[in-house]
Amino acid sequence: MNEPVLADSVRFAGDAVEVLDRRVYPFELRWVRCVTSEAVAVAIEQMVTQSSGPLFAATAGMVLGAREARHDPPEEAAARLRAVGARLVATRPTNNHIRDAVHAVLSATVGVGGRAELAGDALVAAVEGAARAHEDGYRARSATLGEHAASLLKDGTRVLTHCWADAFLIATVRAAQAAGKRLEFVCTETRPYLQGARLTAATLVEMGYRPTLITDGMVAAALSDGLADVALTAADRVTLDGHVINKVGTLGVALAAKAFGVPFYALIDAPDPQAPTAADVVIERRDGDEVLHTLGRRTAADGVAGYYPAFDVTPPHLVTRIVTERGVHRPQELS
Amino acid sequence: MNEPVLADSVRFAGDAVEVLDRRVYPFELRWVRCVTSEAVAVAIEQMVTQSSGPLFAATAGMVLGAREARHDPPEEAAARLRAVGARLVATRPTNNHIRDAVHAVLSATVGVGGRAELAGDALVAAVEGAARAHEDGYRARSATLGEHAASLLKDGTRVLTHCWADAFLIATVRAAQAAGKRLEFVCTETRPYLQGARLTAATLVEMGYRPTLITDGMVAAALSDGLADVALTAADRVTLDGHVINKVGTLGVALAAKAFGVPFYALIDAPDPQAPTAADVVIERRDGDEVLHTLGRRTAADGVAGYYPAFDVTPPHLVTRIVTERGVHRPQELS
Repeated sequence: MNEPVLADSVRFAGDAVEVLDRRVYPFELRWVRCVTSEAVAVAIEQMVTQSSGPLFAATAGMVLGAREARHDPPEEAAARLRAVGARLVATRPTNNHIRDAVHAVLSATVGVGGRAELAGDALVAAVEGAARAHEDGYRARSATLGEHAASLLKDGTRVLTHCWADAFLIATVRAAQAAGKRLEFVCTETRPYLQGARLTAATLVEMGYRPTLITDGMVAAALSDGLADVALTAADRVTLDGHVINKVGTLGVALAAKAFGVPFYALIDAPDPQAPTAADVVIERRDGDEVLHTLGRRTAADGVAGYYPAFDVTPPHLVTRIVTERGVHRPQELS
Repeated sequence: MNEPVLADSVRFAGDAVEVLDRRVYPFELRWVRCVTSEAVAVAIEQMVTQSSGPLFAATAGMVLGAREARHDPPEEAAARLRAVGARLVATRPTNNHIRDAVHAVLSATVGVGGRAELAGDALVAAVEGAARAHEDGYRARSATLGEHAASLLKDGTRVLTHCWADAFLIATVRAAQAAGKRLEFVCTETRPYLQGARLTAATLVEMGYRPTLITDGMVAAALSDGLADVALTAADRVTLDGHVINKVGTLGVALAAKAFGVPFYALIDAPDPQAPTAADVVIERRDGDEVLHTLGRRTAADGVAGYYPAFDVTPPHLVTRIVTERGVHRPQELS
């Protein structure tokens, strides 16, 4: 089985971290080289990586932070590492991968507050170990989640995707393939960054499929025409009362799925215990200018202003099932 | 008041017809020169013009057809003109502007069948007069329609548009301006051809507004966020039982509007008496390759197939009002 390029898109190269530039993949295979933890934070802000990429960028950024603190005494090293973590968490507010990764690394090393004793090479080694453990845990949870998600898909199912579900999608496809299930895919292109047209489509091609691509406006027509049997997306956050926060456009997918009797499944490793409901989640508003361009080229008339909520909120009554590493759940029964 | 460029986008230049290239407007002000009626047909097929542009291209194409038949005897001239009309009608099947324009010109000159007597300069003059009369009638109907549509918009209304409603939108805005009503606009970009980001946005800027642009996937989020008070689109066809056939994406707009309590108004000069219901309308399927590109540049991964239904069908229960030149109607009461 081919290993999709995006399955491993953050790597160490000597003293630096290299992050696959998802803004241009698959048209270019470009790695953004980050020699400081700050550079990693900027790369996340600038959408060099997204979806679950920031989790791996964040753990790598913490490793760089530990190396930057190598010559500090313990208390200063701990303070520096906590500051690096806070900087990484501040990059993008909606998905909690970064927050959880930073928390996991800090908890296992210098703690999130209070006295710390690690320093020098011991600190670096501890952070590297904690980072790897968090990454391995995420990969394992994704694989388990993929098994649960694949259990919802019958042989021959035609799956509508929106945006890029990253490790969850790869794991779901692997599990379906291992079970001998044939699948077909219809992908939205997912403007403005075209994650569907580029990342999802390229990865599915790498995994042996020939996806059908539609524009974001064609979802309702496609479901009305019977082009897909299920709609399946990741979630950037799921609240305890079953709201799904995911790439803007997901709400429209869910409305159309409901209207045309197509089940809508959302994938996330776990709901956020810190988010009882949607009001507890910050929806990132990105620069409206990004809506006026496509792959860096102006595609809108002069004189307009772009509006860019990066995510939208789908209420539980529009969600058929939420798939986590623990299994398949009705959105109303998450708590 | 500024005259929008798109208000007059087909013109005669000596022996030729020049059609404003809407595929590149407003980035380039390029006119495609057509010296034969066949060239006009090809221009329509290739999306040089769209929306109500093909109506004016079709009448101009008929004038070129009459000139091409100038030296034919009456019966041959009539047959040639009818063949030109059939060629123009065959270019794009969903909107009936072309069909009606051709029918109007033929009926007023050589007839749609049977014996014909006009030839030479008299034929050309008759076709020119019939073409102008049809165009003038359309402009007058659009202006009346605009008055009715504007009557639905209160001072301060924020209007969500999808695609490009052409003469209907211009007439609606003019009527609202004449009544002293302030409006604001949120426009979808309308992939793959970006008519919203280019044509609607540019025209509204020319008419004095600063529209907000969203991607097609943001409609539900925008309406959920309360960004617009009404959704308003043209229709390419309305059936006698109230189905609205319009640019793909309209169905998703209507679903979101219904979900969030926003009225959806569709504008068309008249429902199609030849289309009792949606099954009577041919939905054009365009080359899927167009979905894989943006303004001529590849924007999708290799190995995918595009799917491109140019229009979708919105059922009457999702349509609040249909505005015609006769007034404002419930979709269930059109007949």
